[in-house]
Order: sequence, then structure tokens, then C-alpha cells
Amino acid sequence: MQHFNHNEHPHRRYNPLLDEWILVSPHRAKRPWQGQNETLPEDNRPEHDETCYLCAGNVRANGIKNEDYTNSYVFENDFSALLKDDVLYETKNNSLFQLKPERGINKVVCFSPKHNLTLPEMEVSDIEKVVQTWAEQYIELGNQDFINYVQIFENKGSVMGCSNPHPHGQIWAQSSLPTQVEKTQKNLRAYYDKNKTSLLKDYLDQELKSGERVVIENNHFAVVVPFWATWPYETMIISKRHFGSIIAMSKEETTAFAEMIKAITVKYDNLFNTSFPYSSGIHQAPTDRVSHPEWHFHMHFYPPLLRSATVKKFMVGYEMLGEAQRDISPEQSAKILRELPNQHYKTKNQ
Amino acid sequence: MQHFNHNEHPHRRYNPLLDEWILVSPHRAKRPWQGQNETLPEDNRPEHDETCYLCAGNVRANGIKNEDYTNSYVFENDFSALLKDDVLYETKNNSLFQLKPERGINKVVCFSPKHNLTLPEMEVSDIEKVVQTWAEQYIELGNQDFINYVQIFENKGSVMGCSNPHPHGQIWAQSSLPTQVEKTQKNLRAYYDKNKTSLLKDYLDQELKSGERVVIENNHFAVVVPFWATWPYETMIISKRHFGSIIAMSKEETTAFAEMIKAITVKYDNLFNTSFPYSSGIHQAPTDRVSHPEWHFHMHFYPPLLRSATVKKFMVGYEMLGEAQRDISPEQSAKILRELPNQHYKTKNQ
Ligand SMILES: O=P(O)(O)O[C@H]1O[C@H](CO)[C@@H](O)[C@H](O)[C@H]1O
Ligand SMILES: O=P(O)(O)O[C@H]1O[C@H](CO)[C@@H](O)[C@H](O)[C@H]1O
Repeated sequence: MQHFNHNEHPHRRYNPLLDEWILVSPHRAKRPWQGQNETLPEDNRPEHDETCYLCAGNVRANGIKNEDYTNSYVFENDFSALLKDDVLYETKNNSLFQLKPERGINKVVCFSPKHNLTLPEMEVSDIEKVVQTWAEQYIELGNQDFINYVQIFENKGSVMGCSNPHPHGQIWAQSSLPTQVEKTQKNLRAYYDKNKTSLLKDYLDQELKSGERVVIENNHFAVVVPFWATWPYETMIISKRHFGSIIAMSKEETTAFAEMIKAITVKYDNLFNTSFPYSSGIHQAPTDRVSHPEWHFHMHFYPPLLRSATVKKFMVGYEMLGEAQRDISPEQSAKILRELPNQHYKTKNQ
Repeated sequence: MQHFNHNEHPHRRYNPLLDEWILVSPHRAKRPWQGQNETLPEDNRPEHDETCYLCAGNVRANGIKNEDYTNSYVFENDFSALLKDDVLYETKNNSLFQLKPERGINKVVCFSPKHNLTLPEMEVSDIEKVVQTWAEQYIELGNQDFINYVQIFENKGSVMGCSNPHPHGQIWAQSSLPTQVEKTQKNLRAYYDKNKTSLLKDYLDQELKSGERVVIENNHFAVVVPFWATWPYETMIISKRHFGSIIAMSKEETTAFAEMIKAITVKYDNLFNTSFPYSSGIHQAPTDRVSHPEWHFHMHFYPPLLRSATVKKFMVGYEMLGEAQRDISPEQSAKILRELPNQHYKTKNQ
């Protein structure tokens, strides 16, 4: 009988943040691909696009004119999935038909007035301003009495449902803790109650000791491919210090966080020499006016590409009905990302 | 203050099978779409394709020649994600780095030798043979001592990662209960222990009484848009009788099940006059030699299309980090599907 090798043999790994298992089939990346290819993003965008509803000074569909902004710019989403209005609702729930109205606010955050930039192509100092904007929004939205959670995220690339290449992200703030956040909180809490330490602090300490899944780090943050990553090049930025939310960051930590955002997104672009698509987002303490010592600030990156700039991983039949499944080991992905240059491929020959 | 209306106001619904909430934003389907469009599937395939590795009599990449099959045809996946081999493994798990080797068998099930058919275009009697093949595989695989669960599924369409349009599905059979199945079982079990009835039987009885989310039914099965559906046109085929797995079906139920598969997939094709992509799969009792009175046989359909044959719903940033979100109400979707013709659009003028 062969000895188990995690870069060769099928196995399952446990995600302690979500309390669920995933399937790893590291040998499977060898199979040939005959399926769908994604279209490559256009790469000759102007710095200002008259037809872009996110560019400075342009008029949006609802007739509102964007400010002539110079750094980041925030406005309420013209097609919000959540609405502020309170509605009258009689509970008539039975256990199999449970429903409750939900209130919230959706915002759009432009990262830069320059239509042709993306986070990896921005200066660290400009990414820092984006982080500051996120912090301001976390406070402003979180202070509203009906907002208990503020989800900051970015969909990058048309393959991730992003309909405008202008560098921007979104914020969905709402009354309830969304499902994934609630699960994460439950597991962070159980660990904290048991060990009186942060799950992610303990996890990161062990990752830094082994180095096997660390992609890059600085004094305050590290980027790792989680032991339980599902997407081929999934990563997480984790703060080295244990704190719960973006407003607990020092000035130095803000810079360090911006540096790590730049570092990992540059590596992503360098992986297939393309503007690398992903969904990313911050998981942090709710704004529900309760103390949350269990929370540990972190940012997830879920990028879909697997084999090339045009071939993604499909999370479909087995993954939807069974469990998430990956085709290379997290250790292999971490090594590939770690060894990529830290300078953006487009600026290499400058 | 306005009275709550589930076709207008944002709300959350509870999925009792997975014990999680989803967000419904029924007003949001109104927003304009400027994002990615999918390419339409080719629709002029020959009945036999020399280059197709699933067609009868053709030779696959590994040199094996397919039988000259006439109905359905099963073989082991040439690029299996799970392997049969047992490996030597020393447990060195700590709570944050849990891993275990996993064994299994992956099979491919061709539904028909005709390269240019899909389930909605097949005769009910031929779909019945597919159902029989699934039942045989459930027994054959489930009888192996290291197989405790048999996941039967189909990825249809290139947008669902399907690399070959030849009508086929897959079976992944394995030692562990996959995450989604384990969650479902846990919730079915808790309900059964408490009420001594099947959760899905009680649910279906209420759905049939209201009719609001019922798409189509016959004597033995009903197709509903679940109250907690996440995908725009998600449906579930549920057996009216409470039984745990495909091998408990009578001859008459097998025919009735095949009829419902045909009926819902025809409606799907008719929705946008296109070969409608989806991932589908059966959830049923494990083969772990333990009694499972809580299980209730059902089949999920998760189709991605939202607005047209080329515009899908993206489950991305908010959905990955927060929770699944849908843009029309399940009741609206059920009505649309219910009112579609039961005859396939391609055969309409015959
Ligand atoms: O096995 P196939 O058809 O090559 O692959 C497809 O289905 C599998 C099971 O859902 C997925 O893991 C793959 O990502 C998908 O491309
Ligand atoms: O809000 P957008 O960018 O129009 O839409 C995109 O992101 C949303 C939040 O993840 C998703 O619900 C949509 O499916 C996606 O297309």
C-alpha cells in the first residue's frame, strides 16, 4: 500500500471557519480540457470613458452626476438589492416556510477616477485611501440603528459578473448577519470560548511557522492559501495582530494592509499575464453593538481561474450537490503564487 | 408604512434542508444588464460524431473503445477525481489542520447513443432506462464496502462546465458523506426525530395544497420551485410517497419520475427557446448499511440562466461572502415555468 501524499492522493480537508469539508483531487489537474473558454478582458481602456457610469463627472442612468472625484468615491447603488424602507409584516411562519423582511443599504465604491486602472496597478498610497474609505463606510453605515453588518466586497472581471471594468467594489450593509458570516462567527466564537484565543491568530501562527502555504507577508499581515481553500488560487489576507474590524487598524497597519492587497493582486495578474478575475471581501465583526472578541479581521480572495487566462474552475454538479472540490493542492498553489514576481507584468520593461 | 409583499420587498427565506437563509430581492430583476453574455450552444450536432469520446463505438483518450450501446452506457471516468486505492495514512491532525484520505469511484453515464439529443428531447421510455441505470449503479456501487454515498448528477451546457454536449451525466461514489448531503441528512433527521414524519413529505403536502410554487405534477411526483430556491429557476422533483432511495421506486413510479424529468427539462428549454443549461442531481439515502427513515428521495435542478438564453445569474461577491441571493421571487418563477407549454419548442410545428 502506498503512503499518503497530499500532492497526489484524493483527500478531504476541514474548513474550521465554516465547519465543512472540501474534496481535494490533486492528481486531477492533469486531465485535458475541452470545455468552455472565457473571453479575455479588453486591455486598451481609456483613462476616462464618456460612456462609463462610474467615471468622474459622468451622468448615471438615474440622471445623477458623479462628483469630479480624485481618489475614491462612494454613492448609493442605483439598483440596490436591499432597501432602507421598513415594512409592516405579520409573522405567519411555520417551520418549513420561514420568511422575514430584510432592510439594508447598498453602496458602490469607486477605487480611482482612472477608468483603466485596477487595484494591482494602483499605487499603495491610493489603495490606502480605498481602505480608509472602507473604514469610514463601516462606521457610517454601522452607526445606523438598523444596520448590524457591513459586507465590503469586489467583483472583478466579467467572469465574476462585473458589468463595468472601472475599478470599483460594493458594500452591502444590512440588518441580519448573512449566512456565511453567521457561520464564521459561530465557529470563531466556539473556538474563542474554548481557548480564549483567536482561531485565526492560532492558525496564522502555525502557517507562518511552516511557511508552506504562505504567499507573502509584511510586519502586520500575511497572505496565505488556506489549508482548506476551495478555489484553485484562493487566498486570505490575515492580520497578524488579533483585532475585530477595519476601524481597529493603526495608520501603519492600514499601509501594510494596502501593501498586501497590492502584492497579492499583482501576483494574480502575473499568474497568467492577464487582469485576473476574482471576488474578494472582508469578513469582520458585526456592527451590532455587542462585544465580539472572537472576530479576527481578514479578507478573502476567491478567483475562478484554474489553468489559464481563459479556463476557469467550474463549481457545478458535484460541487453544488456534494461539496466544493479542487484540482491542485493548496500547497502547490501557494508555491506557484509565492514564486511569481512581485512586479506587475505590464510595468516589467519600464 | 407599506405592507410587506413578497414579490416586491427584500426579504430572507430559510432553507430547512441546509439550515441556512437566502436573500430575495424581487424588485431587482428590473435593473439593466451590461455585463457578460454567454455564448449560445451550437444546435446542429450530428446523430453520431466521430470525434466524440462518448459516442458508441468511438475510442476514448485512454485507448478504450466504447461499446456499441443502444440505450444508456456506463464506464469509469478516465479522469476520476476520486480513486479506489487505499493509502497508508498517519493521523497527525490538529483542530485547525484536519485532513483525511478519501476513496471513491467516478463514473460517466451516457443517456443515449444519439449525440444530438438531450433529456428533454428523449422519449420518456428512454429516460426510464436512464433511471433504471442510475438504480443499478446505486446498488452496484453502494454494495462495495468502501462506498457509503452515491452522488448521481448531470452538468448540462458549457456554462455549467460540461465539456461534451453528448447527453450524459456522472456518478461520484465515495466513502464519506459529502458536505451538502451531510447537512441535508442532519436536518432531515432532526425533523424526523421530532415529528416522526418526513420533512419533505410535510413540505410537499403544503406546497400541493397552496399550488403557488408547483410547476407540474403527476400521480407520484411533483416539481416545485422550492420556497427557499436560490437559482432563478431552481426546481426540485419530490416523490409524493415517502421513500429513501431510487431502489425503492415501483415500476410505475420509475415511469412517473422519468415523465417529470422530461416535463421540467422541456419547460426549461421552452423558457428561452434554447438548450437550457443546469446542474441537476439526486439526493437520497446513503449506502452505509444503516437505516435512514429520515431520507426522502428528491432531485435538484440548479440552472444558472436569469434573463435570457445568454444572461445568467452570477453567484459572486455578496453571494460567496454573504449569502445566496435571488432577483425574482420563487413564486414569480414558478408561475412562469407553470405557464410554459409542455411540448418542446423544437417539435412544436411537427
Ligand atoms: O468531470 P467533468 O465533466 O470533466 O468536469 C465538470 O464537472 C465536475 C463535477 O461537477 C467539476 O468538478 C468540474 O469542474 C467540471 O468542469
Ligand atoms: O451589483 P452588480 O455588480 O450589478 O451585480 C453583481 O454583483 C452582485 C453582488 O455579488 C450579484 O448579486 C450579481 O449577480 C452580480 O452580477
